[in-house]
Amino acid sequence: MTPQELRLACRDGSFTTNTSGYCAGYVQANLVILPKSWADEFFVFAQQNPKPCPIIGFSKTPGEPVIRVGGKDVDIRSDLPQYRVWRDGELAGEPADVSDVWQDDFVTFLIGCSFSFEEALLADGLEIRNITEQVNVPMFNTNIACEPTERFYGNQVVSMRPFKAADAIRMIQICSRFPNVHGAPVHLGDPSLIGIEDIQKPDYGDAVTVNEGELPVFTACGVTPQAVIKQAKPPVCITHSPGCMLVTDIPNSKLAIF
Amino acid sequence: MTPQELRLACRDGSFTTNTSGYCAGYVQANLVILPKSWADEFFVFAQQNPKPCPIIGFSKTPGEPVIRVGGKDVDIRSDLPQYRVWRDGELAGEPADVSDVWQDDFVTFLIGCSFSFEEALLADGLEIRNITEQVNVPMFNTNIACEPTERFYGNQVVSMRPFKAADAIRMIQICSRFPNVHGAPVHLGDPSLIGIEDIQKPDYGDAVTVNEGELPVFTACGVTPQAVIKQAKPPVCITHSPGCMLVTDIPNSKLAIF
Repeated sequence: MTPQELRLACRDGSFTTNTSGYCAGYVQANLVILPKSWADEFFVFAQQNPKPCPIIGFSKTPGEPVIRVGGKDVDIRSDLPQYRVWRDGELAGEPADVSDVWQDDFVTFLIGCSFSFEEALLADGLEIRNITEQVNVPMFNTNIACEPTERFYGNQVVSMRPFKAADAIRMIQICSRFPNVHGAPVHLGDPSLIGIEDIQKPDYGDAVTVNEGELPVFTACGVTPQAVIKQAKPPVCITHSPGCMLVTDIPNSKLAIF
Repeated sequence: MTPQELRLACRDGSFTTNTSGYCAGYVQANLVILPKSWADEFFVFAQQNPKPCPIIGFSKTPGEPVIRVGGKDVDIRSDLPQYRVWRDGELAGEPADVSDVWQDDFVTFLIGCSFSFEEALLADGLEIRNITEQVNVPMFNTNIACEPTERFYGNQVVSMRPFKAADAIRMIQICSRFPNVHGAPVHLGDPSLIGIEDIQKPDYGDAVTVNEGELPVFTACGVTPQAVIKQAKPPVCITHSPGCMLVTDIPNSKLAIF
């Protein structure tokens, strides 16, 4: 299935599941849609916090549902398998299409997703524990504060992948090539130094095995903007449903800076 | 003083000390000179072990004492402050000039030195503990085997610099730009995983403070080829005296691959 075929299958309602593992080689994006009155400030927040919140595209005209940067004929209202609609910071629904709640002041943001760098790590022969163990990557709240704006603030959420030291060094090199999908890790080693008490009790996702002699490596995570928006309680916000990403026509290699 | 002025001062005997801190911005090189019958195998060894033994230049004609890659008018027999002459693996002298022991089958190798990447780290605002504490960098024997040739083999020697995790990640990025000066670290974190028993008891150089919350970061070290050559016991070998490097005309930035 090409990215466009998958998007059209989302649009006609025949594709409704997690996009993980589909359309290998293409960028999958986190989605954030906000009214213009909140979007401008979110844009500033994202620019200030590029590691947890790397913007790979946005709609330049409010209300415009066609997102050209995402690929051919992308209708952002229907081309993801499932959405989350938030009202005043509370989950108000998980529809497969948001055409009926669309507003002419909506601004769309596409945010980089770790799938892109995970693909590059696997291609290099590194083991990614959450993939080996077939679970969600473990994610943790930290004490690393985001650079705040007036209404958007909070601490970074990070994902964790364990590696032996030599592999952690290689992982840092590879992820550094991908600043638009969270870039280099923000921490490695002792979890308590960034406010994580128990590496086996993630705040989101699932625990994974950390073997003797491995270092936990922590990468800024796209859950951060979601947590920050939830806290800010805009009157309305639309995001993707977890794992149900926008599959774009952008090759992952296009996000590599060298 | 320009690199050429420093080299001429070595040649006329007026400069006789450590080159550390001189000619900022220019590559300083480790020196290895071997007879042709050993040099070919050493060349293979270096190619197989580019992290501990990164060759930045070599003489193409045996016996040729002018090393063009090093800069203008470099006479490798006289343009370092001090040399070590080895006979059958034993130190046989530390002259300021090796013209009188020069052989027409000598092949010269210039090997990258950590001064180049340390300059890049300092320029980025990172603290280098051995520089702060004004001592030699601590170096350790490890259990990481070099890829052997028939006569050249042994374990890697590494240098250690402590950093907080976020600085260690940045250090890995910067050092990755310099593959010809040992490149990315080979290990970080638990020293025992690479056979180091006590981080406060280096095998070469001096101990440095490792603060709470810092990770020791280990980089392949130019002492490795010296140890390997000493073990191989060639009938004759010339190296630089520790800290008394060849100062070249090559800007450090030329060694950065991006």
